[in-house]
Amino acid sequence: MRYELYYWPEIQGRGEFVRLALEEAAADYVDVARLPARRGGGVAALMRFLEDEKTSRPPFAPPFLKAGRLLIGQTANVLLYLGPRLGLAPRGEADRLWLHQLQLTIADFVDEIHDTHHPIAGSLYYEDQKAEAQRRSTLFLRERLPKFLGYFETVLERNRRRAGWLVCGSRTYADLSLFQIVEGLRYAFPKSTARLERKHARLVALHDRVAARPNVAAYLASERRIPFNPQGIFRHYPELEA
Amino acid sequence: MRYELYYWPEIQGRGEFVRLALEEAAADYVDVARLPARRGGGVAALMRFLEDEKTSRPPFAPPFLKAGRLLIGQTANVLLYLGPRLGLAPRGEADRLWLHQLQLTIADFVDEIHDTHHPIAGSLYYEDQKAEAQRRSTLFLRERLPKFLGYFETVLERNRRRAGWLVCGSRTYADLSLFQIVEGLRYAFPKSTARLERKHARLVALHDRVAARPNVAAYLASERRIPFNPQGIFRHYPELEA
Repeated sequence: MRYELYYWPEIQGRGEFVRLALEEAAADYVDVARLPARRGGGVAALMRFLEDEKTSRPPFAPPFLKAGRLLIGQTANVLLYLGPRLGLAPRGEADRLWLHQLQLTIADFVDEIHDTHHPIAGSLYYEDQKAEAQRRSTLFLRERLPKFLGYFETVLERNRRRAGWLVCGSRTYADLSLFQIVEGLRYAFPKSTARLERKHARLVALHDRVAARPNVAAYLASERRIPFNPQGIFRHYPELEA
Repeated sequence: MRYELYYWPEIQGRGEFVRLALEEAAADYVDVARLPARRGGGVAALMRFLEDEKTSRPPFAPPFLKAGRLLIGQTANVLLYLGPRLGLAPRGEADRLWLHQLQLTIADFVDEIHDTHHPIAGSLYYEDQKAEAQRRSTLFLRERLPKFLGYFETVLERNRRRAGWLVCGSRTYADLSLFQIVEGLRYAFPKSTARLERKHARLVALHDRVAARPNVAAYLASERRIPFNPQGIFRHYPELEA
């Protein structure tokens, strides 16, 4: 089946967690909104599903995935669906629930990272909430960043399979997502991240192991990978790390 | 099986979404942290799982559910597990994904509601982020509250089964959660919620239908239901709605 991914065409954002899964599995997919409008792409292709009154089960927001007649929204839910189909999830129900639990914790982490630069409202520019962003970022870097990174380091440490992955003995979609978190944090908060990496050897090793996967490496070097930029979830505003 | 729920004993919080599912289904469960310490309850019972190095798959935060040897964290993930077992989820995979997608959107909504009074950090008192809370709440009430409520009204409207539930023809865990959202909003933002309810008849009807379920009604009237209070996710600070 050819999957259709719908996400904002100019940022990595939450769509990137789905892109990484599709790329690692060499899945047949189209990143629809990144196609030119004359080929049915652009933001209009995405808005159609959000606004069309004929969409019987409308997503609240991108990303969403079209898989045949199914339209699936919410990043973690898309991965819950794709995981077993792309060979990125373990077999048993208990292991799959644990994997999904980790993905939902990653989603919470992403929300908190987003809110470091948008603590007041997504509808305001960063410049209009800069003082609040400063305050939130200081506490995020002091309290939340170490807590989240420490948590995932602990999860890696307690995985009895000792293969360096989060769940059981093979890579899953959560490993790909955690790789993306480390990438994004290095871009957004380089100093704090470098400092914390020294104490999180397993997390760094996981990042490097994902980056070295041939399909991921090819994707990262391709034009399909949108560079980090100041419109995405991970933003580099040096003043927030001062 | 007797389920063990672990959640902070003095607030409804995110645990309430799980409590409502267990209560509606008349499941055999213990709300462990609400038991007295001499019977193995209290906050210590909960912290044990978060802090014990022997927990091989530690939750990041409450609520979590112990089901036999399984320990399941993340509210939506707990409901994903319980849904089919408690008769609170439809049968087909497509319908279950849609249900889970709605639950994850409710989770996002809950996060935004929480951040109206804690836009800077969960570790600070409300009093120490009052100015920022005022600013965030104003925009939340103007932009996000109507958007979320409008979304769920649309979902109800487009459900072809016309039974008044979110997914297919029977009540699911997401209906119970949406009931709780309406309850909480009435407590936290009574004026804005009353105003919006006039335009969201399906949502109000769903709320009333859930409240009238015999098991839910018995629960709400019991001492098991913790009252709303100024420590929970839904907080009534009149100045935020001024």
